Amino acid sequence: MTFKPKFNIPGNLLAGDTTDIYFARTVEILAKENRNPVAVMEVFATRPGILCGLSEAVELLQAILPAGEGEIWALEDGDQISAKEVVMRIKAPYLSFGLYETVYLGMLASGTGWATAARECAEAAGDIPVTSFGARHIHPLVAGRMDYAAMVGGCEGCSSIEGARLSGINPSGTIPHALILVMGDTLKATLAFDKYMPSQIPRVALVDTFKDEVEESLRVAEAMGQRLDSVRLDTPLERGRVTADLVKEVRANLDMAGHRHVKIFVSGGLTPERIRYFAENNAPVDGYGTGSYISGARPIDFTADLHEIEGKPVAKRGRIPGLAQNPRLKKVR
Amino acid sequence: MTFKPKFNIPGNLLAGDTTDIYFARTVEILAKENRNPVAVMEVFATRPGILCGLSEAVELLQAILPAGEGEIWALEDGDQISAKEVVMRIKAPYLSFGLYETVYLGMLASGTGWATAARECAEAAGDIPVTSFGARHIHPLVAGRMDYAAMVGGCEGCSSIEGARLSGINPSGTIPHALILVMGDTLKATLAFDKYMPSQIPRVALVDTFKDEVEESLRVAEAMGQRLDSVRLDTPLERGRVTADLVKEVRANLDMAGHRHVKIFVSGGLTPERIRYFAENNAPVDGYGTGSYISGARPIDFTADLHEIEGKPVAKRGRIPGLAQNPRLKKVR
Amino acid sequence: MTFKPKFNIPGNLLAGDTTDIYFARTVEILAKENRNPVAVMEVFATRPGILCGLSEAVELLQAILPAGEGEIWALEDGDQISAKEVVMRIKAPYLSFGLYETVYLGMLASGTGWATAARECAEAAGDIPVTSFGARHIHPLVAGRMDYAAMVGGCEGCSSIEGARLSGINPSGTIPHALILVMGDTLKATLAFDKYMPSQIPRVALVDTFKDEVEESLRVAEAMGQRLDSVRLDTPLERGRVTADLVKEVRANLDMAGHRHVKIFVSGGLTPERIRYFAENNAPVDGYGTGSYISGARPIDFTADLHEIEGKPVAKRGRIPGLAQNPRLKKVR
Amino acid sequence: MTFKPKFNIPGNLLAGDTTDIYFARTVEILAKENRNPVAVMEVFATRPGILCGLSEAVELLQAILPAGEGEIWALEDGDQISAKEVVMRIKAPYLSFGLYETVYLGMLASGTGWATAARECAEAAGDIPVTSFGARHIHPLVAGRMDYAAMVGGCEGCSSIEGARLSGINPSGTIPHALILVMGDTLKATLAFDKYMPSQIPRVALVDTFKDEVEESLRVAEAMGQRLDSVRLDTPLERGRVTADLVKEVRANLDMAGHRHVKIFVSGGLTPERIRYFAENNAPVDGYGTGSYISGARPIDFTADLHEIEGKPVAKRGRIPGLAQNPRLKKVR
Amino acid sequence: MTFKPKFNIPGNLLAGDTTDIYFARTVEILAKENRNPVAVMEVFATRPGILCGLSEAVELLQAILPAGEGEIWALEDGDQISAKEVVMRIKAPYLSFGLYETVYLGMLASGTGWATAARECAEAAGDIPVTSFGARHIHPLVAGRMDYAAMVGGCEGCSSIEGARLSGINPSGTIPHALILVMGDTLKATLAFDKYMPSQIPRVALVDTFKDEVEESLRVAEAMGQRLDSVRLDTPLERGRVTADLVKEVRANLDMAGHRHVKIFVSGGLTPERIRYFAENNAPVDGYGTGSYISGARPIDFTADLHEIEGKPVAKRGRIPGLAQNPRLKKVR
Amino acid sequence: MTFKPKFNIPGNLLAGDTTDIYFARTVEILAKENRNPVAVMEVFATRPGILCGLSEAVELLQAILPAGEGEIWALEDGDQISAKEVVMRIKAPYLSFGLYETVYLGMLASGTGWATAARECAEAAGDIPVTSFGARHIHPLVAGRMDYAAMVGGCEGCSSIEGARLSGINPSGTIPHALILVMGDTLKATLAFDKYMPSQIPRVALVDTFKDEVEESLRVAEAMGQRLDSVRLDTPLERGRVTADLVKEVRANLDMAGHRHVKIFVSGGLTPERIRYFAENNAPVDGYGTGSYISGARPIDFTADLHEIEGKPVAKRGRIPGLAQNPRLKKVR
Repeated sequence: MTFKPKFNIPGNLLAGDTTDIYFARTVEILAKENRNPVAVMEVFATRPGILCGLSEAVELLQAILPAGEGEIWALEDGDQISAKEVVMRIKAPYLSFGLYETVYLGMLASGTGWATAARECAEAAGDIPVTSFGARHIHPLVAGRMDYAAMVGGCEGCSSIEGARLSGINPSGTIPHALILVMGDTLKATLAFDKYMPSQIPRVALVDTFKDEVEESLRVAEAMGQRLDSVRLDTPLERGRVTADLVKEVRANLDMAGHRHVKIFVSGGLTPERIRYFAENNAPVDGYGTGSYISGARPIDFTADLHEIEGKPVAKRGRIPGLAQNPRLKKVR
Repeated sequence: MTFKPKFNIPGNLLAGDTTDIYFARTVEILAKENRNPVAVMEVFATRPGILCGLSEAVELLQAILPAGEGEIWALEDGDQISAKEVVMRIKAPYLSFGLYETVYLGMLASGTGWATAARECAEAAGDIPVTSFGARHIHPLVAGRMDYAAMVGGCEGCSSIEGARLSGINPSGTIPHALILVMGDTLKATLAFDKYMPSQIPRVALVDTFKDEVEESLRVAEAMGQRLDSVRLDTPLERGRVTADLVKEVRANLDMAGHRHVKIFVSGGLTPERIRYFAENNAPVDGYGTGSYISGARPIDFTADLHEIEGKPVAKRGRIPGLAQNPRLKKVR
Repeated sequence: MTFKPKFNIPGNLLAGDTTDIYFARTVEILAKENRNPVAVMEVFATRPGILCGLSEAVELLQAILPAGEGEIWALEDGDQISAKEVVMRIKAPYLSFGLYETVYLGMLASGTGWATAARECAEAAGDIPVTSFGARHIHPLVAGRMDYAAMVGGCEGCSSIEGARLSGINPSGTIPHALILVMGDTLKATLAFDKYMPSQIPRVALVDTFKDEVEESLRVAEAMGQRLDSVRLDTPLERGRVTADLVKEVRANLDMAGHRHVKIFVSGGLTPERIRYFAENNAPVDGYGTGSYISGARPIDFTADLHEIEGKPVAKRGRIPGLAQNPRLKKVR
Repeated sequence: MTFKPKFNIPGNLLAGDTTDIYFARTVEILAKENRNPVAVMEVFATRPGILCGLSEAVELLQAILPAGEGEIWALEDGDQISAKEVVMRIKAPYLSFGLYETVYLGMLASGTGWATAARECAEAAGDIPVTSFGARHIHPLVAGRMDYAAMVGGCEGCSSIEGARLSGINPSGTIPHALILVMGDTLKATLAFDKYMPSQIPRVALVDTFKDEVEESLRVAEAMGQRLDSVRLDTPLERGRVTADLVKEVRANLDMAGHRHVKIFVSGGLTPERIRYFAENNAPVDGYGTGSYISGARPIDFTADLHEIEGKPVAKRGRIPGLAQNPRLKKVR
Repeated sequence: MTFKPKFNIPGNLLAGDTTDIYFARTVEILAKENRNPVAVMEVFATRPGILCGLSEAVELLQAILPAGEGEIWALEDGDQISAKEVVMRIKAPYLSFGLYETVYLGMLASGTGWATAARECAEAAGDIPVTSFGARHIHPLVAGRMDYAAMVGGCEGCSSIEGARLSGINPSGTIPHALILVMGDTLKATLAFDKYMPSQIPRVALVDTFKDEVEESLRVAEAMGQRLDSVRLDTPLERGRVTADLVKEVRANLDMAGHRHVKIFVSGGLTPERIRYFAENNAPVDGYGTGSYISGARPIDFTADLHEIEGKPVAKRGRIPGLAQNPRLKKVR
Repeated sequence: MTFKPKFNIPGNLLAGDTTDIYFARTVEILAKENRNPVAVMEVFATRPGILCGLSEAVELLQAILPAGEGEIWALEDGDQISAKEVVMRIKAPYLSFGLYETVYLGMLASGTGWATAARECAEAAGDIPVTSFGARHIHPLVAGRMDYAAMVGGCEGCSSIEGARLSGINPSGTIPHALILVMGDTLKATLAFDKYMPSQIPRVALVDTFKDEVEESLRVAEAMGQRLDSVRLDTPLERGRVTADLVKEVRANLDMAGHRHVKIFVSGGLTPERIRYFAENNAPVDGYGTGSYISGARPIDFTADLHEIEGKPVAKRGRIPGLAQNPRLKKVR
């Protein structure tokens, strides 16, 4: 992605409210002791993955480092990283950034976890686009960050408004079951959508709410004609989930009725394994919508270690003193 | 917990920026169609767990429902819930709350995931207190919510300032490796902490930074005497992690040197399984600090279904029309 | 079952056409050698199970033993038997029955395999009746024997005409998909069935052919009223099979529409494990239809060993010479 | 096999006695409704395998379709088939063949199950011939069909008289334990066999009845000389089964005594896995006799679906309407 | 065992030839430094088991400690011990015993490994006696020690002459295959054994050398009459091993021929699991002979740690300084 | 190894004290019967491995065969052997060697077990030398034989004095924990070692006794300078064992302090799997010390079979009579 997001770090983060208390105490103690050495902090992940959260971490550091002080070297969001590879190095007086260790590590941990999971889905899907629909499965404070990370990892669309804004795209969405239930009929809901929505928004009919998916697909295709972009299959687990055979059956019925232009979009509990199942069974899927596989991805833990104090190599037990070699790092401040 | 948190839902959530785009469109379509029926929405989880996020969801709904309109029935944060059990029921004109489905589901999903993981740790630890140290492993926007959920699930302390505020407690923390590295010596760092910190904060020395854990424990215990509350073992994976035998060895050496009052606090990659390992091997641990097991817990997906429209039972395929029976629900609005 | 079946052993079996050639040769050789000792043959199974095929084997032996000669001791169809337990003992001049070893062992092997599988299904189903629908999955020459064995094992009905005759009951059946496809509509087919079939045959509507199961169930229930006995769910694997949740959904919708008297019958790939799944998930099933789990059951191998020749104990290596003790055996000739 | 079997479908099958009752009812209802459309039925298997039962199914259909009416396209016995591949297509007025769906599906299910299992054995054995000895482990009504299917699948001989007749060969057999027990000695029994049997029948001595296999092998080889074709090892499970080492030991002893022409035939609980064990351990086996692995093979379920009614594509849910493409199908009527 | 063995520690062990070179060097260095503190050494096992090798270790220490100096506390051979339980404590000037750490640890490691394995066999066998036949599977220098440990662990006999002497019993043995092969016949060998051996040695015929086990059992029983104590079944793996059914068959044939007094002894690859197999299948075994399960048992590693130097508690990292509590220890010097 | 060991078989072995009693009885019986045929004994292993114990077995046979009598063909210590491959053939009058079957089989079983385990370690380590330190984990009577076998299998050094003598090398050893505990300090102990030991013995400091391994490594490297050959890491299991990261950390700290010449030697619970773990994680290990993996290796059972008596092929059941072909055998007597 060449688009550069702007995260607008909120005030409570800049104020250190979300940090671990012991960093607040450390800064207080060192200040009282008049100790403020130039320190080099190196940050690495404990598992390999697709880096994300780095832009946000740098935005934070740019905001809190004193003008004219401090240097940062870093990789970029979207880079494939190895376990223990240094992804960011900060060199600055310790008191100017020591309070924020909890904050930038957390940005990297969550972001990299989501982006890595998105990459797995995208690789399983191959050429078929994957859209992130997981906003509902994660706390709304981070729903936008999650969708941004999903795009970094390889999705081609996302459903949350904030996530789309961070990614420089328009949000994607079909018709929720709620609209159909309120309207009382799939076709009525689809026609209402078609009536009021701007023409550039694709018409995607959700066809599993009340009746058989094949029956509904044919009804909306008949009524909408060329205006129908696709049907979305989201058969719930209680009804056996979407199967490869169901996709084939819908495809065959649409084709027999002359609706070859109508695409089929699949969602519901998708994982990389389930996506591969559709591919291996030659199901004619035109798009996947993933939910909690990406949004619920386990964060990838990051660690920040001091490796130099006033120019002298240091390290705690278990780590190697001095700066690590990583020619991929670029100076960003 | 009898303390009632106040979450101060931020403006972007109230504005619907983090919602799925299709709910924004649904509201727009129904408004243009002049459809605003009284609807009953029921919310349930797909897996059993410890409910959390409910207080925040209710705070949101109270903020957005029009004065005098809408009813809510709900369980409480901390309740044990079953799969598919209805945990909240909203009855109000659909247009007044339809936009927020993504938002309140996400609050419940993340909160319940964290609280459930915390309960597993607390049950493994039995009478020994567990503190949540996971803020650094998750995005700072939700670090406070995570620590609040950890407290709901059974932790007895947490490290993030915001999490402690939401839980009505003081944050817990020891001394970070960074302070010791900057000070250049474990003992110096501990004495500096002791010199400047208010007396009610327990003195907990981190003893694995530079030297052998037993050697450092004895050094700080000698120097601090009765003022030392405990030592914290956080031996990194590179050095074989904290083992039950190490805890016993530190205990034996402290006791032989007359420091029976000094407690031992263990952290580093703890999971319920690892906590049970300490218990099964009779390690004399006085406190556990958990990190990413709780903060990285997979959210527990929640679903919201319309079950009544203008008094008539409805449901999409796969769900039972009409209201579910759950006598545990209490009317909160 | 107290009903006594009559199998009418066909001529090619009595002629020895289906026997192993080496028994025909053995009889020829011994006759030429003038050796026809009184021999005792004992028959046992290699695995435990529910005995079946014994009545047919005795009917065969009664037909071929010379008048006034030969004794038989045996257990009965439906008896639970242990591995290696003697289930039948024949004492007669060897040449009078030696040719038929292949024949009676085969009757026991197949019959006991089917009856044992049926018992597993019946035990999994508990009080809920199980009907055998497997005739289509096995060679028609033995379809009747299979259904008889299913009844011996614990089924309460079977679909093949011959199997029902052997069991002394009326055959059970619903409406095949073929009738609905030819009639072009589920409801039309059900009404035609209702119009022409004798009133004592229960009306069971198959509701998964064209439309959603819930929709069709309500349609037939509305049209048939009290005359509708039950609906049958047979959702194919391509559509995710019948799930416990689907049964609950159909039940809830029928009840809400006032059709509490309509029962739900489930079929499609049922095994004891799948039947237990319905029970464990509290699915309100009123009847199960099993297919190839019973009809495709592996035969349980039986062995016939000579244990006495002219009153002297004999045995081949690996077997104990002389007669086995089994007080359960009853003299039947 | 180029030999064309004649199955002589018995009268109870032609009368529909073994069919599911609901087909009888369907035919009755449609007749009363005066509905007899030209219908196209397609038949496919749910698992891949070696097709068998097709010749018999066609013989049935030829017998029941009215003269001059109906068309059939089909594959042949012995063809390798895929899951869901159409193996037979019937186009005829529905009432002329609707009653027989249970019957021809059952022929295909059992036959294909047996032939597929036989192919697995034959492939495991490579160049070494496999003989089917399983008649005793299955109901005598189908013992001949089973042996025919075993031949279709790749066996080079079978023991049942009827199976051999259907396959156009002479039945194969050695000497049963019963003859040896009645004669009281392995050698006496073998000599009696040799005395009375036609010279073209190979002399195969069964050598595990009374004494050690090596000892008996040498005894019969000494006495029979060049007339001995082979010895058969059938050591029972109670005595540790036939092992690869036993075969080598018998071979070495026969060779040392100058009986290199005597072959070794192995039987007893053989499966493809056990046959591979002999090959992998270089056991000098000259022939295998399989029993219940083939005769007890699970039938492979077949399904018949209506795909066209009076020229219009139809299908039930889960299947694709209209005729499937399969250029391998040949018109046989 | 109340018998007290005498091991006669050979000179090369007393001279320290088998010790690790670094103990020789340690003693040399300390002597040159004039350091010879009174030291307390504690010895423990890393796994639980049945202690053995302790008597021999004490015999060694008694031989090398200077007269009037040194104290020893210890458990006894045959005691059940826990992991890390102190089994021996030595208090003496370090130079008097430091050289022998390798030596006494090795005695304990091997002895305890063998005794523990023997106990597992004895527990599996219950009331049926187990004899140790493993001398041939281990270096002859320790064959006697191994058999002694097997007796300590629960065997009731052993085959090596030296092992029997150490255990204060007569060695047990049957007839080897070699005698039968040289004599050319099982019966001749048994009769020769009977002719020359003292009458108190039980006559145990090995019956699997040339002919079928049942046949040979009956031959020797006929010929030896009441003088035959038992038959031994040792069927090799190449012939399928001894099975529970073979034992039953031999028993039944002996009983039918009136040789009820003849016992059955089983050997060949026995492990606790295989012994339990015979018990679970009700095989009438009268005695078991175990081989490499006991002799090839993995030694159980022991560790010796200095815990006091001149009265002051010491320990290396990972161990607790000072003396361990173990009230089971008895003073033996 | 071209060095030829001399084992000096002790008198109790030559006297037959460690043999199974039944061989002593066999010899007595045959002597009384005046049977002393020339017999050919063939010896083979039941599993593949690295042959050892053969030199010692031949030394024994040379000592007991009468002058001028008997022939021996054999492979050599260190040869890779297959399961069932004949490794030694003895041809002599049976009474001259029959007593010793237990003895030479035991030598081969233990020796081959140890050598095979050593080879696995050496192969895992690749170019990095492995030293055998297992003497303490096995009975001292065989400690020397074990170390000899470890050298045959591929070790480049061993710690027992006797093992080194048998292998024609100097024993290897570092400094035991005991010396450090008695001296009270790692550095003092290392300096004392350096003061008194001949200069050709490498100075290897054991650095995990009292303090952190990195700290001690730097202390001894500072004090010893170029005289320090290596440090040995032996961190106990209680402290998490030696990890690949610890090796890297020690290496980095030594290098940063200018001690690049100091090597790192690793020990403690090493197995082939654990050695591979170091290699796969690129740990800069310069030498491995193995203990009980080699010394506790399960013996590989050998079998001796008579295959010819007075020129006539014989064998017991399960074995092939007559001599086996093995062109690798060389005549050694």
